[in-house]
Amino acid sequence: MDFVYPFDLVGTFFFAMSGTLAGAKKQLDAFGALVIGFITAIGGGTLRDILLGKFPLFWIHNMHYVLIILLSAGISLLFRQRLQQLRKTFHLFDTLGIALFAILGTQKALVMGVPPLVAAFLGMTSAVMGGLLRDVICNEIPLILRAELYATSCLVGSGVFLGLVYYFPSMPGKALIGFSCIVAIRLLAIKYGLRFPQLRDGK
Amino acid sequence: MDFVYPFDLVGTFFFAMSGTLAGAKKQLDAFGALVIGFITAIGGGTLRDILLGKFPLFWIHNMHYVLIILLSAGISLLFRQRLQQLRKTFHLFDTLGIALFAILGTQKALVMGVPPLVAAFLGMTSAVMGGLLRDVICNEIPLILRAELYATSCLVGSGVFLGLVYYFPSMPGKALIGFSCIVAIRLLAIKYGLRFPQLRDGK
Amino acid sequence: MDFVYPFDLVGTFFFAMSGTLAGAKKQLDAFGALVIGFITAIGGGTLRDILLGKFPLFWIHNMHYVLIILLSAGISLLFRQRLQQLRKTFHLFDTLGIALFAILGTQKALVMGVPPLVAAFLGMTSAVMGGLLRDVICNEIPLILRAELYATSCLVGSGVFLGLVYYFPSMPGKALIGFSCIVAIRLLAIKYGLRFPQLRDGK
Repeated sequence: MDFVYPFDLVGTFFFAMSGTLAGAKKQLDAFGALVIGFITAIGGGTLRDILLGKFPLFWIHNMHYVLIILLSAGISLLFRQRLQQLRKTFHLFDTLGIALFAILGTQKALVMGVPPLVAAFLGMTSAVMGGLLRDVICNEIPLILRAELYATSCLVGSGVFLGLVYYFPSMPGKALIGFSCIVAIRLLAIKYGLRFPQLRDGK
Repeated sequence: MDFVYPFDLVGTFFFAMSGTLAGAKKQLDAFGALVIGFITAIGGGTLRDILLGKFPLFWIHNMHYVLIILLSAGISLLFRQRLQQLRKTFHLFDTLGIALFAILGTQKALVMGVPPLVAAFLGMTSAVMGGLLRDVICNEIPLILRAELYATSCLVGSGVFLGLVYYFPSMPGKALIGFSCIVAIRLLAIKYGLRFPQLRDGK
Repeated sequence: MDFVYPFDLVGTFFFAMSGTLAGAKKQLDAFGALVIGFITAIGGGTLRDILLGKFPLFWIHNMHYVLIILLSAGISLLFRQRLQQLRKTFHLFDTLGIALFAILGTQKALVMGVPPLVAAFLGMTSAVMGGLLRDVICNEIPLILRAELYATSCLVGSGVFLGLVYYFPSMPGKALIGFSCIVAIRLLAIKYGLRFPQLRDGK
């Protein structure tokens, strides 16, 4: 887990940034934007750990998460004009964040003896539920339910990771392969606008 | 509990269907609709168990729930035109689902030594909170706060069940009587449009 | 805690009132308004205890909370025209409620060995998350993210309280001083319309 910890903080940093910028767009004040940043950054992992019954939560006894979020929100607010122009960079970092959280979450669930199908679902929860909470609080239909293969890429990558764990347990780099699948699927989906067809009533 | 288990899966099936169809109406894609189906089906029971501090959650170590939800969502998506016409059938199944979950939830809370008034509230939580989450995510004012005696019928049925447990502990069929009360009240309320008067400001 | 308990019930009473009146404004029926009152009153403390992993929750084995909420909702519904005119009185009670819950929540987290920065955050959670849930369910952008120094006053008061705990541990009245800071900041902010500047895009 020590190996993973810095990545976890990096993912937290980028999710806090995405939440703070979303709050700023909603014409909230700086404090409101910070709260949204906070919920976006820790929401997915918090929900995963609550569902697993793993207490105390990862950020309760470790101030690093809170400090990273405050730092990220501060930077986001100071440089938000510039950051909102960097849409492409932003998509890249968001993608790295969800890929990381999906694989980490799947692994954490697996370690606790959860069946693989449920573990993949909990990995996806870690990755996307922070964003879902962000959108619900901002009073919008969640992006994750509409964006290009967003949660789907997490499920596929977690599935690949789980397949490797079961069939090639001694192979190195299993997590990295699952991670890369998510990044590749999501970036290709953004680039080519891939998405599942919308469901239409009466059709 | 073994006796109850198949009913629990049946209730899960119908709630997943109601959530998936609601997601489809919101023009989400198939995956988004599945996520809504999932949250609708397990949301109430999950919240009840979290409030009771009962971990791990019922669906974490048991893949049947996830499989049933995937099956239900698949069927709902394939046959959604036909299903959305069967409004009456749908109301019937939804009613059976909430009645079942309300009595089951009350019983589970009672077994954990919760006072009866709180147990009835937790039973209602099991029954209606999945639907509340579904509506909050779909960005609507929750139906359960407005529909015909929806949550009310659950509270009354749970109350009847609790009364029987306390005054006639050896009587058989207590759960069935509570269950029937909920079904009867809710179906009559739908049929005759019974509801509490809306509150109006300034009146 | 015995000293604090009656205040806790008083805070619960006023939060239930604020939620019930908000539900009534949304044209819900009496039952829907009661549910909103319930969630508003116990939501913040419930979320705090779940995040701390402190089970069973404070209101599960103690019927007083549920009874107080039912009483408060009943009074709110009967006298809601009169109550909605008493806007100033209402702000005062709401302020006393959040100040009480913020300091209580910070103290509870501290007792469980949580670092001070996280404890202040959990105190704020106790105070404001009930209102956030109320607004999310009523389909509005949460007031706490927009109102005059609402959550901010909680954070500052909790910070003052924490500073006293660390630097003057034997001083009496630490909680009262933190409490008074919150009340003073919030009431002055309401009176003079103090708030952080709204964030505007492109500025």
